[in-house]
Order: sequence, then structure tokens, then C-alpha cells
Amino acid sequence: MAKIPVAILGATGAVGQRLVSILFNHPWFEPVALCASERSAGKPYGQATRWILPDPMPVRAAAMRVRGCAPFPDPAIVFSALDAEAAMDIEEDWAKRGRLVVSNARCHRMRDDVPLVVPELNADHLRLALRQPYPDGGAIVTNPNCSTIGLVLALKPLDDAFGLESVNVVTLQAASGAGYPGVPFMDLIDNALPYIHGEEEKLEAEPLKILGRLSADGSRVENASFGVSAACHRVAVTDGHLEAVSVAFKRPADKSAIMRAWLDAPVDTDGLDLPSAPKHPVVYADGLDRPQPRFDKAAGNGMSATMGRLRPCPILGWKFELLSHNTIRGAAGGTVLLAELCVAKGLVRGFSPAGIAERAPCGEPRREPEPALA
Amino acid sequence: MAKIPVAILGATGAVGQRLVSILFNHPWFEPVALCASERSAGKPYGQATRWILPDPMPVRAAAMRVRGCAPFPDPAIVFSALDAEAAMDIEEDWAKRGRLVVSNARCHRMRDDVPLVVPELNADHLRLALRQPYPDGGAIVTNPNCSTIGLVLALKPLDDAFGLESVNVVTLQAASGAGYPGVPFMDLIDNALPYIHGEEEKLEAEPLKILGRLSADGSRVENASFGVSAACHRVAVTDGHLEAVSVAFKRPADKSAIMRAWLDAPVDTDGLDLPSAPKHPVVYADGLDRPQPRFDKAAGNGMSATMGRLRPCPILGWKFELLSHNTIRGAAGGTVLLAELCVAKGLVRGFSPAGIAERAPCGEPRREPEPALA
Amino acid sequence: MAKIPVAILGATGAVGQRLVSILFNHPWFEPVALCASERSAGKPYGQATRWILPDPMPVRAAAMRVRGCAPFPDPAIVFSALDAEAAMDIEEDWAKRGRLVVSNARCHRMRDDVPLVVPELNADHLRLALRQPYPDGGAIVTNPNCSTIGLVLALKPLDDAFGLESVNVVTLQAASGAGYPGVPFMDLIDNALPYIHGEEEKLEAEPLKILGRLSADGSRVENASFGVSAACHRVAVTDGHLEAVSVAFKRPADKSAIMRAWLDAPVDTDGLDLPSAPKHPVVYADGLDRPQPRFDKAAGNGMSATMGRLRPCPILGWKFELLSHNTIRGAAGGTVLLAELCVAKGLVRGFSPAGIAERAPCGEPRREPEPALA
Amino acid sequence: MAKIPVAILGATGAVGQRLVSILFNHPWFEPVALCASERSAGKPYGQATRWILPDPMPVRAAAMRVRGCAPFPDPAIVFSALDAEAAMDIEEDWAKRGRLVVSNARCHRMRDDVPLVVPELNADHLRLALRQPYPDGGAIVTNPNCSTIGLVLALKPLDDAFGLESVNVVTLQAASGAGYPGVPFMDLIDNALPYIHGEEEKLEAEPLKILGRLSADGSRVENASFGVSAACHRVAVTDGHLEAVSVAFKRPADKSAIMRAWLDAPVDTDGLDLPSAPKHPVVYADGLDRPQPRFDKAAGNGMSATMGRLRPCPILGWKFELLSHNTIRGAAGGTVLLAELCVAKGLVRGFSPAGIAERAPCGEPRREPEPALA
Repeated sequence: MAKIPVAILGATGAVGQRLVSILFNHPWFEPVALCASERSAGKPYGQATRWILPDPMPVRAAAMRVRGCAPFPDPAIVFSALDAEAAMDIEEDWAKRGRLVVSNARCHRMRDDVPLVVPELNADHLRLALRQPYPDGGAIVTNPNCSTIGLVLALKPLDDAFGLESVNVVTLQAASGAGYPGVPFMDLIDNALPYIHGEEEKLEAEPLKILGRLSADGSRVENASFGVSAACHRVAVTDGHLEAVSVAFKRPADKSAIMRAWLDAPVDTDGLDLPSAPKHPVVYADGLDRPQPRFDKAAGNGMSATMGRLRPCPILGWKFELLSHNTIRGAAGGTVLLAELCVAKGLVRGFSPAGIAERAPCGEPRREPEPALA
Repeated sequence: MAKIPVAILGATGAVGQRLVSILFNHPWFEPVALCASERSAGKPYGQATRWILPDPMPVRAAAMRVRGCAPFPDPAIVFSALDAEAAMDIEEDWAKRGRLVVSNARCHRMRDDVPLVVPELNADHLRLALRQPYPDGGAIVTNPNCSTIGLVLALKPLDDAFGLESVNVVTLQAASGAGYPGVPFMDLIDNALPYIHGEEEKLEAEPLKILGRLSADGSRVENASFGVSAACHRVAVTDGHLEAVSVAFKRPADKSAIMRAWLDAPVDTDGLDLPSAPKHPVVYADGLDRPQPRFDKAAGNGMSATMGRLRPCPILGWKFELLSHNTIRGAAGGTVLLAELCVAKGLVRGFSPAGIAERAPCGEPRREPEPALA
Repeated sequence: MAKIPVAILGATGAVGQRLVSILFNHPWFEPVALCASERSAGKPYGQATRWILPDPMPVRAAAMRVRGCAPFPDPAIVFSALDAEAAMDIEEDWAKRGRLVVSNARCHRMRDDVPLVVPELNADHLRLALRQPYPDGGAIVTNPNCSTIGLVLALKPLDDAFGLESVNVVTLQAASGAGYPGVPFMDLIDNALPYIHGEEEKLEAEPLKILGRLSADGSRVENASFGVSAACHRVAVTDGHLEAVSVAFKRPADKSAIMRAWLDAPVDTDGLDLPSAPKHPVVYADGLDRPQPRFDKAAGNGMSATMGRLRPCPILGWKFELLSHNTIRGAAGGTVLLAELCVAKGLVRGFSPAGIAERAPCGEPRREPEPALA
Repeated sequence: MAKIPVAILGATGAVGQRLVSILFNHPWFEPVALCASERSAGKPYGQATRWILPDPMPVRAAAMRVRGCAPFPDPAIVFSALDAEAAMDIEEDWAKRGRLVVSNARCHRMRDDVPLVVPELNADHLRLALRQPYPDGGAIVTNPNCSTIGLVLALKPLDDAFGLESVNVVTLQAASGAGYPGVPFMDLIDNALPYIHGEEEKLEAEPLKILGRLSADGSRVENASFGVSAACHRVAVTDGHLEAVSVAFKRPADKSAIMRAWLDAPVDTDGLDLPSAPKHPVVYADGLDRPQPRFDKAAGNGMSATMGRLRPCPILGWKFELLSHNTIRGAAGGTVLLAELCVAKGLVRGFSPAGIAERAPCGEPRREPEPALA
């Protein structure tokens, strides 16, 4: 079966490597280009990259010659794992060339016409993309910050069921969230850091957009109005963000109702058969001392957020702990799931889940009348 | 100069070792007995103990023969680093023999007639001890839990200045808080644990007693009435508890007023010249990413709590980070400071700071009319 | 297909858990009993065990009720993950009842009539078991120490090709080698320990038996005669023993000949189709800074030893680094592979790889005339 | 008392910070300039530096404005903590201006006319410096690599007593040896690395020069002739290099003779009263599991090397473990001690230990006829 040709921007970095690892074994997508800075361009990916994942580098990736990040015709979807600075212009350049950019960078997330999407929660926000000023179906869609994703997976069902009033979240975040080389060993061994640059701002802002409501005409998102306070820490963990969350609700809740909200609520990806969608976006770990990075980061192949220790909070009402894998669900895996959603929703011209086999050959003009979600 | 003879209960454990390290170099106290379980009794301390501190074991301690924990006449003060289970009866046995027990164990802390004291904050609570049913000046006084001490050092000045309404605290606690051997390496390396047995309960209860008011007749403490919510975590750090704190005040506050409250407020130990009292019980670290265990645990020889990152909280009003050394200020050092306060307040019959030189020889009948604080 | 009924002794410990994890998904073996100390006996395994593996506990294991370690009729093979002290008598008790004991404990390894076997290297040593004084095919066979296995996988092909004269090995061993709870966090974080009790002795003795020659009559092993010097360290790693090895040969060698010896030499498990046998017992990692626990411990599903950095040694001739997974190849996985070899060699009465389906029902008298290897 | 004006090159780096920490509290030396790359030049040191030491930055250092590394008149001694690449020319530039450069960089160490000195061991090698082609007493003297220093402190007394034939050393080196930021957290947590770039070469070459003999005319060093084989590893430790050493001697040795050689042998710094000289360059830790970074790195204020576990080696004869602090004795502290030796030996024109008080004012022409050691 023919697949959708994709490129990976920032392919040599920490998130880029996760994308490579996922996309070279993906049923829908076919990496046709690995792009990085000019310094790496021209080298085989296997030489240009200091591979940091425990699983070995895909053999086909190793042999592929790295390209620069400027647009070229081949890919239909461009996955961006670029730094925010680099991403700002490059992602737009690709959108202007009619490509769908699925980005993990923060720079376009809060733009009014850019959807910030967690596929299970606010798939309808993708309609924003139709308002973007790019030709030929070009668009930018974005994935939230790694510490935001786990949090909103927990919060959305609670907001739907009980109405969120306020949220206090204190994070214990893994080192891989800082990329590679990232945090020096000497800074974090036998230590903990009470600060991550820009993180609290993102964590206090992004949930309000994701849990906001799309206006009737699909032109903008009205932010949710609950309050969020975040305190972010880096701890001596490789992968897996742990978050201590307290919530105040507008309506009464009890433990079993909260559990039902998490475990039984329908999600926007139900019925879409997206390859990366976890069976359960939210799971609950029963042990007294769970969730933990060691045991729970791999839940749902790294795509589920694990809740635990749900208990009353003397101040806000309820509190719990949550864990999610920051470079899978919180970055590369989340981005891939979002791209799958875009395909399912008809945002990638010429491709649909059903029609991947009959698509126009890579590089040819693509002509699809209108995305299904318009 | 003659010193006050003291014994250390639980001397071979993690907190006991810190006590040994401090007390063998103390200007007022002279360890005359190192006590531990019957298994260790009779052996030289140097053989019975798996020493875990970076500083070498005091030479005199190494040669001392370990005794059991049952009372004997020599010491005037007994420092208890026993587990709560063992401490319950043994501490009372010593008090019944007319000794002052200064305890780090949790078992008697919440008893109505037992003072739970941080010397800088609520020295007046020591008067409770006069109500205890022990003869000859015997008494039990207690030091709070390791995660409580740093917190109340931060909260008391704020309560005095602005009136506390509620407090949310999320901890990142060091492994040494679990004693030795404590947490297995495999449980904590590359991991974080969202649970410490009994810790949240202590952290939600003890501050209310410490910041409570002694009734006019000195017979009991009326607990403070603000709310506390705690979520406790173990992180991969040897020493130094980091806490993310949010507070709501009854009266308006601004950043400079909060800083003044922390740094300028008088404390109960002012003017007492206690050897272990830090010059500043509260210090403030200016760096964006401070306080950290690595840099700040040793502030004030491990006896100061370090604040940092004071900033507005969208939910409760203000938030900040704090760090304190859990086995020095939070255990052994705090216990020693409390014993010094007891001496200064006349609770140790026959001894006063001024009169340490003229005290009756160790073991003789001690006859001091009335404690000064009565 | 019916499987061979097996029991696991010491099933709640660190190695026992690995055995549970492997054996509940094994094509030949069916765990019919999980045995542990009397303290655990009677409880469901899921309650009696503090599970420490990242992969979840098998559901069927969790529900199984733990038994004591005294013999009972059901199992045909008994896997022992007991401590040496407990293993000494219990393993013999099982052998006296006619069972095959496949043991990871050290206590019987050096007995003249007990084979100490790495299946790829000295399968013929199993004949020793026929000399054991147990009825009904009862026997004890043993797996080497965790740091020995990787080393002999590297040394045997070199001894065959060039004749070993002397071996110097310095280990950097993982914490899981000490079992659970094992090493306290405080002892190993930001530290390294230059001593592991009894380890150097084992590492200097076991290779000589494993690489020794079975006498013509199969009654004993003549130890190999090269010298071994070991220095053992514990480092802050969960799984994966790294070893720095220098070797002197009797005959000339060059790099490509050594590589061929490692990668091309036939092994005793060739053609046996043992389910746990790695495709390549020895692999070579090309990177300048390999092998590493992080990247190489999982080679061959944790059953391959990874070599790297082969280079001349100014003192002994050649030196290299090797890594093997200490709780898989070095313990549980190695034990299971050894049991598979015993089945293939006819040491388990009533069972053969071909005939697993037609075996006598569990618990019935087993009557197989003579093992094939006799 | 007036002190000798000194500059620190590379003052913002990891070793530079240790130098700052030591030299701002030194009885002989007065830092008059902190030099770094042009990027930092002009900024206050407190701003230009990401301080990584637990002890606070000296207040006077914080306020000092950073200068570039090109020569200027003020300092009499220049401490170089530059990278080898930068050091090559800059150190010569300073020597050409008549300054004594005491360098921790590797680039000039193996030059025939450059002394490579451990003050206790080969102080006489300083005479080489008189042959250097620099005017006005300018010279370059060098400190060995961090893993070499501990090793040669152990080897020299053994060579003197028993005659070294060969040495096998396997290191477990701390992360701080790679400077700052150095090793990424993700590379080393729960891991060990069997390779450090260039380290084995240095460790196999430098001891031969240090333990070599100065020719009669003082013009060159005849290298020692024993063989050295090194295998170097990075482990998850902040400070403190641990080394497993095996040695073959020419003459018979026994345990007590080796201990006497280490502990009683005279050293070249005896009687010189150098402020940084440890009382015992070599100490022996008795514990079964010593030396360890945690307990032993601070021996002799970080200037002593600690031996332990001396025992027979079946291959080479004897083996032991050693530990030394890699950024104190192995870098900054060793450099300072070397500078003190140079002063004591009259290599710094115009200054002698006795005459530090009467020295010519800083910046004036310095005119001392001939160094005492010529």
C-alpha cells in the first residue's frame, strides 16, 4: 500500500529522533526527507545524528542523506521538531507551499488561526486551519507543550462533568523535556531544579485554549475561563513528567464520578481508528505510590496519561497525581497522532485513511475539493 | 568548662549519626551515652554503626560502647532519634526518671501537653511541658517532621504579617528523610515517587499546632485555623527538601512586604545566643532557578531555610519555593537547637547557659527550684 | 500443546520476578507453583510481591497463591532463585524427590558432580548430573554468577582460537545484581563502590570450571588453567554489567581473527532451537563509546553479550569492554535457557522438545529410560 | 602582607571556578585578573559565570570585571584553565612576556622543555623550565591530567621501593572531569560510558614522564620504562576519580612494605611549608568497601589520594583501588600547589615565600638574578 510522503524538520534532535523512530514504522506515513540545520545537511542521517534512544536507529533512516529545512516538493505533511526560533519562519514557508505542517514548536500555538489540538479533546478546533492564509491547503496545526498534554487529558473530562473553577499544578519534569544535550549531568544529579524557562507560562495559558470553545463560525476559540497556577520543576528522571494537581469544581463531585469521567467519557478519536490513538487516553494506577515514571510512562505505548492518588484536597476540593511520557505523548507521539487526525478529517489533500492506497504519486499536483470538516 | 551530660537514643541510625556528629563538637553538651537496640548494645559504636555521613565519625564516639535504650542515671538530657514505635514507651520511661527528652520522633508530638516547637517561632509553647505528669523536671519536648520545619519557618512571619488563610504545599523530598537503609536504589534512580507514608497527614496537621496560640494559662495550644493541603513526593536527592508553596492571605501583601516579613521579623531566639541558632532562620536566594538542594541545603550550616521565586499565584495569591536541610534543620540540628532553647529557658534543672561551668557533677541530684519560663 | 509443569523458588525476589515474567510467557514451561518464604506463603502472589519490573506482573501470576519452598509433586522442573543460604538444603530436597533443579544460587556450583553451565559453551558438562546421588532423575544444574556469564561468553571463543594465558577483568556492576531491596539509594547515588562481597572470588573461580574439560568418563571437570584477576565495583546503574577485560593469549592473534572468533564460532546450542537462545550469543558494538548499559543491555532480548572497543593492551596483549544484562542473561534468562537445554538433552524425564505435547499428565510417575546425553 | 599578583585564564569554566574559589582565599596569591573568552570580557565575573560549586562565589570575584586572555602587565603568575586548543598560543604569549604560566591544559605537557610536575614527586623537573626560550623568567610549567595525578601519587613510592614493571589501570571517572556543561544528564543517568576521548593515551604516557629521571645537565627527562595499560570509564559521579590498579614489581614486595612505602616515604614538598600541600599526599582507607567518592574525595582538603583494598593480584602481583578528587588535586588544587612550589623554588622573579611582603609593587620591572634551583 502506498503511504503519505512526509518530512521531518529537526530530525537530528531529541524529539526528531522519536519522530524518526515512530514514522519509519508507521502504517500511513512514509518519511521521504530528514531535515536539519545546514551543518548536518548532506551527511547520512546515521552520521549526522548522535542517536540517544535505547531502540536502534531504523536502518533506512541511517542511510538517508540529511536535507536542509527549506521547502521542496516531495512531502505532503511536514512534522516539525524545530526550536521555536527556527520554526517561526520555516513552518510558514512550508505552509505557503501548500503543505500541512504538524508542529511541536511553541511559536505558532497561540495564534488565533492556529489550532492547538489534543486529538481526543478538541478535534473540532482543526477547523481554525481553514482560515489560515496559505494556498493549496497549506496549514499549520500544533501540538501543546509536553507538560500541558497530560494535564489537559486529565482536566477535559473533569471540566465536562463538573465545571472547572481553578487548577493548581506542580510539576516534576523529566530531563528529556529539555532536548539534547539539554541539562548537564552536574546540574541535576543528586539535585532538583525549581525552574524551567517559559514552562509555567505555557502551562497556565495553553489549557485555556485547548479547553476553549470554537465559535459558531469556526473562526476562533473562546478560551476557557478557569484559573491555572503552575510551578515547574526539573527532576533527575530521563522520561516521564509527573504532576501534582489540585482542582476546584463548580459542581459537586465524588470519587466514583471523577473516576467515571476519566475512564468512561467518549473522546473525539473514538471510531476514527487512528493508528497511534491509545485505547484509553486516561488510565488509573491503583497503587498507593503510583503513578511513577519507572512503571507508568509506557502506558498505552507511551500515549496514555496515568492518574493516581485521587483524594480530597482541603483547599480546592480534589487532588491527584498524573504522569505522561513527555517525548512520546508529550511530543513526537502526540504530533503523529495529530497528523493522523488531520488525515482522517480530510485536511491532507489527496489523502484519506481509506484512500491511502489510491493516492496520487508523490510530488504530483494534489487536488482535493474541500476538507471534510469545513 | 563542664558540659551538660547527654545521651543519644537511636544513635546508630541516620538521624542518630547526625546527632553524634553535632554533639561531639558542641560547646554545651557532652555525650555520655550512645544508645541503640539490644542487637548493638555492648559493641563499640564504631563497630555497631554503618556510618553514612561524609564527615568522619568522631574518634571518641567510635570507641564508646553502645548501651541499650532503657533509662540510667547519667544524662540530664536525652536526644531521641528513635522510630515512633520504639520511642512511644522509651521516651516516657526517661521522662519518668526526671530527664528532659528532646525528641525527633512523631509519637508524642500531637499530645496536648507536649510542646511541638521550632525555637525561633513558638518558644513560649515550652510552657506546656510544665503540665506533664513526670517527676523531678522530667519532660518530653518535640521537634516537628522534617518537611514541616522549613514550611513553618516560611509561614510564621507571613501569618503574623498578613494572616494566613490557606496553604498548598507540594514537596520534593530527599531520600535521607526515609532513614537508612531507607529507599532502595532501584526504586528511586531515574524515578520519582508520588507518595511518602504518613507524610501528608503530618504536613497538614503540625503547622496548625506550631502556629497555634498558647492559652493564657499555658495549659494548651489553640490550633491555628488556616487550611493546609499537602502532596508529598520522594525525589532522587540525598539531602534537602524542596517545597512548592502557594498561600492565600487575609490581608493584602506585596512582594517587598513579604520579603521584609521573612528577612526582618524578630524571632524568639534573638538575644539568647544559642550555639546552633542560625544568624538568619530564613534567607532568600535571588537566582531564577533557586533554591536548589545542591547549592542551598548548607545555608546557615544547614539550619536556615532558603526561599526563592516569590511570585504571584493566579489561584491563591502568592507562591514561592523553599528548601531546607532535612537531616540538619529538619531533624538532628533542629533537635539540638531545641535542647539549647530548653537550657536557656531553664527547663534543664541544674543547668543554665551562664552556669554550665558551675553545674553539679554528672549523676548527682539536680535541684533547681523552678524553670524560668513558668 | 501441553507444557512442562515448573515451580519457581524465591519467586517474590528480584530474580524470581524476572523468572515469573519470562515463564508465564514461555512456549515449553507452565508455572504451576510460585514458592517463597513462609512469611509469604498463602498470600496471592500479587499481594506478597513488591513488583519491581517495568513490565506489568502477569495476570495469572498475580492471582496464584504463594507456596512454601518444601517439595511437592507437581513440578517436573524447579527454578531456584533462592539465596545461597536457603538454597543449600531446599535444592537438595527437591533433587531427592526426583526433580530437576535449575539453580541460580551459588551454593552448589563448585561441587564436583554439579554442572556449572552456559548452554552455548559447555553443554557437555551436563553429563556430570548423571553422577549425582539423587533418585528418579533428580538433579541439580547451575547457572554461573551474573558477572561470570558475560565474561565467559567472551572468553570461550578466544580460548578455543588462541589459548588463554591470563585474564584481567574490572567490573562496573549494576545495582540489580544485589537483589531487592539491595543497595540503599544513599549508598550509590553520586557514588561508586569498589567492592562487592564474594564477587571477585566467584569471578576468579567460575570461568575455570566452565571452560574446563569434561573427563573422558564424564565424572568430573578438569579446570582450565589460565589465570584470572578480578576487581569488582558497583556503579549507579539499574541493569547491565560492564566489564573492562584484558587478555594474554598463548598464540598470536589479530583484530580480525578475534572478531571472527566472537562472531562466527559455532556454539553448543546451534541446531537445538531453544526458545531463549539468542541468535548471536556475542555481538559487537561498533561505536567508539560502546557498549553502554543504556543502549546494549537489551541486545538479543537481553541474552546476548555485547563486546566493544577491542584494542591492543600494552601489558597483556588485547583489551576490550563487554556488557551483559545481569538479571536476564546473568540470572533469570540464563536459568531458563539452561532448563531448555536440559529438556533438549533429555534430562527431564518424560519430556522432550518434540514430545512436550504427548507428555504424561503433571504429577504422574515419570519414566524415561535414559537421558540422551549419557 | 602583600601577595603575589596572579591572573586566572579560563576563569568562568569548571576548573577556573575552583581556581577562583581557592585563590581568593590564598595566603600567597592575590587574583588581579579573571580572564575568559571575548564573549565574557567586560562583564562582571558574577554575571559572566554560571557558578557550579556548592560553596558560594567569593564576593570580590563576583564584582571583578572579566578580561580577555591576551597578556597584560599586572600578574606575576598566570594560572591557565584553558582548553588545550585555546591554551596552545595564549600560554606562550604570556611566557614570552616574562610570566610564569602554571597550566592545567594538556597542550604543552609533553614538550621536552616543559616540566610536567606533581610537586611531591618530581620537583626537580622544574629545572627544565630554565631551558625554555622565553625572556625575563617567562616559563610554562604543567600539571598532569586529572586521572594521572592520583595514579602517580600511588606509583612513585612503589617504583622507588620495588621497581615498577607494569601497571594496569581501569578508571571510573567523575563527570566534572569533562568540564561544564560537559556530559549531558541523559547520557550518564542510570548508565556508564566505557570511553573518554584522549584519556587512555594521556594515562598511558604522562606517568612515564613524571616518574622519569632528569638528565644530569637538567636538559631533559628520560622517561620511565614500565608499561602502562589504561581503560577509562565515565560513571555517574560528580567528583572523585576511582581507579582499579594492578602492578607488577621488579623486586619482591609484601603488604606491609607497600603500606610503608605509601605512608612513610619522604616527598619533595617536605619542609617547604607550601600552603596547599596535604599533610599526607597518600592515605589509606581501611574499610572493606573503600575508597569511595562519597567518603574519600575530601581527604586532605581534596589534595590527598586515598588508597584501599590492597591485595594480591593473580596476574601482576598486587592490586588496589585509589581515589582522588579530580577537580581539586586533579586540576585546580594541583595547579595551585605547583605554583606554590615554583615560588618556593625561586621560579617567580621577585618573590619568595619569605619575601612576599617586601616584593616590588605590582606592575613594576621585576629583576631577580637567577632562580634558586638552577
